[in-house]
Amino acid sequence: MQTKRIYNFNPGPAALPLPVLEEIKESFLNYAGSGMSVVEISHRSGEFEAIINDAVARVRRLLSLDDDWQVLFLQGGASTQFCMVPMNFLGEGDAADYVDTGTWSAKAVKEAQVLGKSVRVAASSEDRNYCYIPKGIAFNPGAVYAHITTNNTIKGTQWADMPDTGTVPLVADMSSDIMSRPVDVDRFGLIYAGAQKNIGPAGVCLVLVHKKMLARVPDNLPSMLKYTTFAAKNSLYNTPPSFAIYTVQLVLKWIEETIGGLDKMAALNQRKAAQLYDFIDQSDFYQSTADPDSRSLMNVTFRLPDESLEALFVKQALENGLGGLKGHRSVGGCRASIYNPTPLEAVSALVGFMRDFEKKSG
Amino acid sequence: MQTKRIYNFNPGPAALPLPVLEEIKESFLNYAGSGMSVVEISHRSGEFEAIINDAVARVRRLLSLDDDWQVLFLQGGASTQFCMVPMNFLGEGDAADYVDTGTWSAKAVKEAQVLGKSVRVAASSEDRNYCYIPKGIAFNPGAVYAHITTNNTIKGTQWADMPDTGTVPLVADMSSDIMSRPVDVDRFGLIYAGAQKNIGPAGVCLVLVHKKMLARVPDNLPSMLKYTTFAAKNSLYNTPPSFAIYTVQLVLKWIEETIGGLDKMAALNQRKAAQLYDFIDQSDFYQSTADPDSRSLMNVTFRLPDESLEALFVKQALENGLGGLKGHRSVGGCRASIYNPTPLEAVSALVGFMRDFEKKSG
Repeated sequence: MQTKRIYNFNPGPAALPLPVLEEIKESFLNYAGSGMSVVEISHRSGEFEAIINDAVARVRRLLSLDDDWQVLFLQGGASTQFCMVPMNFLGEGDAADYVDTGTWSAKAVKEAQVLGKSVRVAASSEDRNYCYIPKGIAFNPGAVYAHITTNNTIKGTQWADMPDTGTVPLVADMSSDIMSRPVDVDRFGLIYAGAQKNIGPAGVCLVLVHKKMLARVPDNLPSMLKYTTFAAKNSLYNTPPSFAIYTVQLVLKWIEETIGGLDKMAALNQRKAAQLYDFIDQSDFYQSTADPDSRSLMNVTFRLPDESLEALFVKQALENGLGGLKGHRSVGGCRASIYNPTPLEAVSALVGFMRDFEKKSG
Repeated sequence: MQTKRIYNFNPGPAALPLPVLEEIKESFLNYAGSGMSVVEISHRSGEFEAIINDAVARVRRLLSLDDDWQVLFLQGGASTQFCMVPMNFLGEGDAADYVDTGTWSAKAVKEAQVLGKSVRVAASSEDRNYCYIPKGIAFNPGAVYAHITTNNTIKGTQWADMPDTGTVPLVADMSSDIMSRPVDVDRFGLIYAGAQKNIGPAGVCLVLVHKKMLARVPDNLPSMLKYTTFAAKNSLYNTPPSFAIYTVQLVLKWIEETIGGLDKMAALNQRKAAQLYDFIDQSDFYQSTADPDSRSLMNVTFRLPDESLEALFVKQALENGLGGLKGHRSVGGCRASIYNPTPLEAVSALVGFMRDFEKKSG
């Protein structure tokens, strides 16, 4: 039973900036003088239009998107994008390349295959349990798109630089590193990201889609599975997940106005990750699981000498106000997820605890 | 600018019970001693499992569902169900009947047709602008299911009794009357309902599916579009819309424990609607738009003598703390949505205002 807030290293849903949570709480019974909670206002109201329009404008500014890009807020998470991307972009005779860097990439491939689409795994790091990001990949120059997962939450790896795909547009699952650093969007055709790690709560997926990709969308898809449906209606075709969009708006505002934009966000994220990796690297007790040149700045995965020590570490960390440090159930070990909202002092507190735990147990 | 809360007659997202909003606000920075906001906890945590399991148990108790039923919380709203239902249940050579009682029914038909499925409109009330519920329908006894929309939000009509479909299971969109009255679930194969009217905020869709229907789901669908995916994982295949599910849990608790279950909820809803319809019926100034035997207990639609009076009515109502009374943009007029959370005093206040407005303007 925690009487005060803990440092939260959850992989997603994850920590949110405290000022954002406080603002939501403060206005929860009467949003912006509407006399209603933000969860009670109509999605067709002026109040909600202001929320979604501000969220869209902030995404545009933060990522320097021009008018050829559409900013959409969809439901169903990144997992729904795994099927929507091939449904919308791959017609008869079309092919796409996928790079397999872990659990989520593999699911994206599988969902495209279920649809009977022609997808090729252009490269994979499965041979070494996904501990690295493949290099020097020969992409199919005739592919409609090349799909990558920019950060691999479970395996703790991240593309430091985007791969060279020639003229083939990248389609990227950025669920776990969206808005954590600047992105050269010119190389992309579509970017999608479940909000619940870097920019908001669970329940909404940010999708950025370029008009050259929208032109490929066929008519004969169900309305809710077509990007064009939402592009034509500013994401308001049907009732949107309004609370989640509102929270995203506030987090984007925090990134822009409190942090100062993506360059500063990236610098802070670099500093947080460096503090953890530097500590792990000088220790013989903790072992980083990802190759140094492929390490994620978002999810720092590490092992202790044995599993019983790992269980004890997670338990005692929580007792010391440090939560969410258990590795994904599919891989075990420990993981500190340090997305945008995680403050530097949380990382410092974690390193301090790790040092003490090593002294006691090492 | 409202300094206090108004009476909210929005059609959805709509009013929520004040005690529910207050509980969310109170615990927003530290949920159940977790040291985290409810939007920051993991969907794999004990805290969230307790939330979703309690929500499921309450749905089961309120609707007397046996173990042959699965209770799911999905994303994408009822609009996604329009395509999932035929995708999951209609194979080669299968046919389904649909009853067309308004905008949303018509969309359900259209989405099934886009998929190339064999659907028949067994009855429609389009001939009189959807102001009534069809009777004595001859359903196809060979249909896999018969689809109805139990309450028509825009047109202000509702099925008082469910139609006789023989042995054909009903599939129902109950988005705007779920949990507003008891339901004889034995006649249904699947029930779906966007939460944002009677049981929660936008962003989650409650789906109840019987195992006889789950047996029809084909393997070769994308994971996110198959009911079996979610049935096998207690709705936790991927990250769920956790805040929306949490709010639904609290509203269901309020229906069970504060109101006292669906019989009492129905009695209260009857009383609220009767107060409004009785007032409208004795007035020559206000005109009900739905046939008396087809009137909705959830959405009371009415007209004033002319459109300029309607605009003035909506404006002055808001100035008097009564919001959301404008009719749907596709039909005009006025509409008071009085879902479960709307208290009787809100309806009394509205009737009082309507009486005053008629005196001044009639």
